[in-house]
Amino acid sequence: MPARCGDTSADVVERLRGLGFDEADARTLAGHFLDAERRGSLGHGLSRVEWLERGAIALDPRAKPKRVVAEPAYERWDANGAVGYLVLAAAIDAQLADPPERARLVVLANAFPTGALGYWVRRLADGGLAAALTANSPARLAHPDGGPKLTGTNPLAIAIPSSDGRHIVADASMSRVPHGDVIRGAAEPEDVVPFGGDRAYKAFALAVGLELLVRALAGTERGAVLFVARPEADPVPAFRALANGVRLPGDR
Amino acid sequence: MPARCGDTSADVVERLRGLGFDEADARTLAGHFLDAERRGSLGHGLSRVEWLERGAIALDPRAKPKRVVAEPAYERWDANGAVGYLVLAAAIDAQLADPPERARLVVLANAFPTGALGYWVRRLADGGLAAALTANSPARLAHPDGGPKLTGTNPLAIAIPSSDGRHIVADASMSRVPHGDVIRGAAEPEDVVPFGGDRAYKAFALAVGLELLVRALAGTERGAVLFVARPEADPVPAFRALANGVRLPGDR
Repeated sequence: MPARCGDTSADVVERLRGLGFDEADARTLAGHFLDAERRGSLGHGLSRVEWLERGAIALDPRAKPKRVVAEPAYERWDANGAVGYLVLAAAIDAQLADPPERARLVVLANAFPTGALGYWVRRLADGGLAAALTANSPARLAHPDGGPKLTGTNPLAIAIPSSDGRHIVADASMSRVPHGDVIRGAAEPEDVVPFGGDRAYKAFALAVGLELLVRALAGTERGAVLFVARPEADPVPAFRALANGVRLPGDR
Repeated sequence: MPARCGDTSADVVERLRGLGFDEADARTLAGHFLDAERRGSLGHGLSRVEWLERGAIALDPRAKPKRVVAEPAYERWDANGAVGYLVLAAAIDAQLADPPERARLVVLANAFPTGALGYWVRRLADGGLAAALTANSPARLAHPDGGPKLTGTNPLAIAIPSSDGRHIVADASMSRVPHGDVIRGAAEPEDVVPFGGDRAYKAFALAVGLELLVRALAGTERGAVLFVARPEADPVPAFRALANGVRLPGDR
């Protein structure tokens, strides 16, 4: 069933329950999809419920992610068959429940798909933590000069908490158009190229760097890397004052 | 004295000694500037020796950076009046001498200028470590729609070691042209804008995120943030094989 603009949270939860997710997981997933809709990030929104419904990825709705290493400055999670969104949700909950003393690397092996990364790091900023998060995805970007498709669109999201609650949440993929726009029929696969025009080699370089960072640290083809830290300072309010009303990353 | 294309390492070291740097620091600085020249990153190369010679920044050539916190997964350095290049050099040496068991956040307060970030993380890759490094700089980028200049050009460098020695080193600033090209007279200040054309909001978002990440973690206006980790896997050789001769980030 295609997403409808009047969908309520209860409708979405019901559809996800229909896929076999339990109530808590269905609510977690609905929270992500509906936030993406509200922010206009439609390729990460309700189109993905339909995408799951039509069996686009192998899905075990009962699978639960596992934390396989838990050290003060390092955690390793494995999707354990769970859809990536739920791996991120569980790992974020764990960081909020037990924040690092200074900083922590959190590696999420086999987490896919992970959705709108800004959504996850915003939750950490709500808890007073700074965070950077990236995730890879199937190879869709080639070098701007041509050749085989080599990397995912590989977003980087960075969240900086603000004492006034108006956090900065930067979240940019390295693709000119999101793959999610292809899924929802709003773009063609050939539009999925590194952004930047005559500087597209920069976005390509960042996509390759993030791709291999994930693979090197996760030790798997697919995954996510989250870096969480306690801030030493609260730079956002003064930065907003300087910006003098300019829209900043993550503002709605 | 302007840089000359026949400059040898000995010439450059001598000029830096003339500025008051000791022999070891002069060699460290020359190593960075000459590598930037060889890679065609001229705005980080010998033009910066002339820039130092003409007193573009307040310089105490005898100052030495200080490591003020050293924990297994966290280090904090302060420039202590030293030029940023030397802060990076000292912090990189320290990571190679005592690598993290898993991962380490290294914060470099007041480190400026920091040069070609790819140069520093490549040294970590030579030592088998994966790394991501960013640094901020004076506000030169405004929002693509206008308004005040808000962030530095804020490069992000990512290095992934390869067992065959052919590491991947992505290093991209968020500016269409490097500020260094303005310093050396090859570009105009108005060319320093977020890269990306009609997607410049993406580079602007990343620049703002990196700017505030540095300020939040360093607790100072200016600095660098380095994240070092031991890889779990060696993904580069297979990635190069897939690339089939396409030039990858950091290749000369």
